[in-house]
Amino acid sequence: MKWENKFTDVLHIKYPIVQAPMLGITTPEMVAAIANEGGLGSLPVGGLSPEKTLFLIHRTKQLTTQPFAVNLFANEVPEYNVTEARKMQDFLERLCMEHHITYEHTALEDLRFYNYREQIDILINEQIPVVSFTFGIIDDNSIQKLRAADTILIGTATSTQESVLLEDNDVDMICAQGIEAGGHRGSFIDDAPLPMIGTLSLVSNIIDKVSRPVIAAGGIHDGKTIKAVFALGAVAAQIGSAFLATEESLAIESYKETLRHSTDTDTQLTRAFSGRWARGIRNKMMMEVENSGVNIPPYPIQNSITTLLRAAAQKQNNKDFTNLWAGQSAYKAEQGASAEIFKKLIEETEILS
Amino acid sequence: MKWENKFTDVLHIKYPIVQAPMLGITTPEMVAAIANEGGLGSLPVGGLSPEKTLFLIHRTKQLTTQPFAVNLFANEVPEYNVTEARKMQDFLERLCMEHHITYEHTALEDLRFYNYREQIDILINEQIPVVSFTFGIIDDNSIQKLRAADTILIGTATSTQESVLLEDNDVDMICAQGIEAGGHRGSFIDDAPLPMIGTLSLVSNIIDKVSRPVIAAGGIHDGKTIKAVFALGAVAAQIGSAFLATEESLAIESYKETLRHSTDTDTQLTRAFSGRWARGIRNKMMMEVENSGVNIPPYPIQNSITTLLRAAAQKQNNKDFTNLWAGQSAYKAEQGASAEIFKKLIEETEILS
Repeated sequence: MKWENKFTDVLHIKYPIVQAPMLGITTPEMVAAIANEGGLGSLPVGGLSPEKTLFLIHRTKQLTTQPFAVNLFANEVPEYNVTEARKMQDFLERLCMEHHITYEHTALEDLRFYNYREQIDILINEQIPVVSFTFGIIDDNSIQKLRAADTILIGTATSTQESVLLEDNDVDMICAQGIEAGGHRGSFIDDAPLPMIGTLSLVSNIIDKVSRPVIAAGGIHDGKTIKAVFALGAVAAQIGSAFLATEESLAIESYKETLRHSTDTDTQLTRAFSGRWARGIRNKMMMEVENSGVNIPPYPIQNSITTLLRAAAQKQNNKDFTNLWAGQSAYKAEQGASAEIFKKLIEETEILS
Repeated sequence: MKWENKFTDVLHIKYPIVQAPMLGITTPEMVAAIANEGGLGSLPVGGLSPEKTLFLIHRTKQLTTQPFAVNLFANEVPEYNVTEARKMQDFLERLCMEHHITYEHTALEDLRFYNYREQIDILINEQIPVVSFTFGIIDDNSIQKLRAADTILIGTATSTQESVLLEDNDVDMICAQGIEAGGHRGSFIDDAPLPMIGTLSLVSNIIDKVSRPVIAAGGIHDGKTIKAVFALGAVAAQIGSAFLATEESLAIESYKETLRHSTDTDTQLTRAFSGRWARGIRNKMMMEVENSGVNIPPYPIQNSITTLLRAAAQKQNNKDFTNLWAGQSAYKAEQGASAEIFKKLIEETEILS
């Protein structure tokens, strides 16, 4: 296959393969490895402080001179019920005591939430060529500022309706995230049932509906799945789980081990870890929170409530009390260097640069 | 594309396209139309009486001399709680009174359930060349009898684990039914959570795991989606929803109308109509049953309880009280003759016979 498409041409990269932004997994090292191989690495900075954002961008730039994308969370912080949040906090504290995980929880009034608006100027100053986002649509002011700086904008849709909204807001490209995908759902139409559309249907439906180039995401993990989404008409394939077990991944060893011994029915959608729907391998914390009867506060409240708990579990290499995000083909994730896994994907796809 | 593959060769048909068996929708006329165009039509007879089964096969044979498949339901009839079933029956009766749907319900003790074992000899006597099945694996005795008659067997899997069980039982081909598919889920490992794997992941996972030819199902509706599943390595594409609005479909007018005005987020999985998980467009009956707090009896009990109700609603062209099975791209289903829709699919796929 020879790829001269709207994706590689516009982005000035070699291959139409995007490494998915996986917050908590993706490192500057992973992004740089993919960028250096000619793919589009994506640095996740959603919900991070401006300082951390800048630090991660600088670190990535030390490792590559190639273009890479930065990924934002486009959500607003909602009002939330402090009494309910405290109940969840208390429930988790008791649960962790039982299981010998010690962490100091942050008082609810001390939680600090960052918004993408605090990151826009950094991205512009750093001349980030591609900004992707999920959990909504960044506001018009941010879009205008990024446009004025010639930034390519990629929005995430999990339904045809969301893709139309992205097009109406003049976003350059649409990442169609099918239900196979690991990690957080990008869904953002709040009063509707969660869209749960498979990648095959979703990519096809969106391509038929909007005129923007579509990047396919969800379940893509090898040459045949990449070829399949190109056959659908996608301009690029976004791949996350295949990089979960790499040397550049932040996944703890027991997470990688669990992945290796899992199968395609071992993941499910849950709000237990962050308050937003996300796909991960079932584990103790997921099931305990789901079955607790305690209301799960909305994102990012629940996310913040569980942050230090999960960090403590990760330090213990404890897979039972941290999120094990994984897509529906994630169990095939191989170990090794990200660059080697990327090269294998390219080989299997027979993409000619 | 030139197709000389394990599917068309073995089945002696022209095109590797299967019309999905859609009980309550598919007619002998639809099956014959597809068979006459060179595809594999599938006649659904799951749960029907031996007499009805024979009648439908004869009717189909009057309309085509080409090979076609017959589709069975491989489930057993479970024990069920009569008190609970009666509660559901009472709930539905009250609901229908409110909505002016009159039907005479069958007394629970008079319900008659048919099993696929009563159909096997008919299929052999009628020299049906291909027998597909779903909701489980037909028993070893039936497999041996069909094998002795040179019947090709196709089993349905919704997870990798199910595909392995089918292979272990020496089934010839595996239909991988992704979560996009309309109608009933073929899932059959009872004590596990319902597999909800997207077609892209599922077909890829099963192809990597088993050595039998794989037929892809779920979300396939046009040339690009057919090409995509061939890129995955499927030997054939099974297509259902694209034939929902055809002249040969039993769907009532208001169902076809609803389909035309729907989108990809309008379907969901429900047990409301039959007691088995199935994908359909949300409507009044689905939501009322789901939200009733009344336990839904297992398949085929709930199916039998709702049969006459749904028949009465259909006579009134009432879309609110019958199942509106639909896949995640079903809203694109076009009107016309099944043969014309089939020809268009072949054209779009650029399959050469």
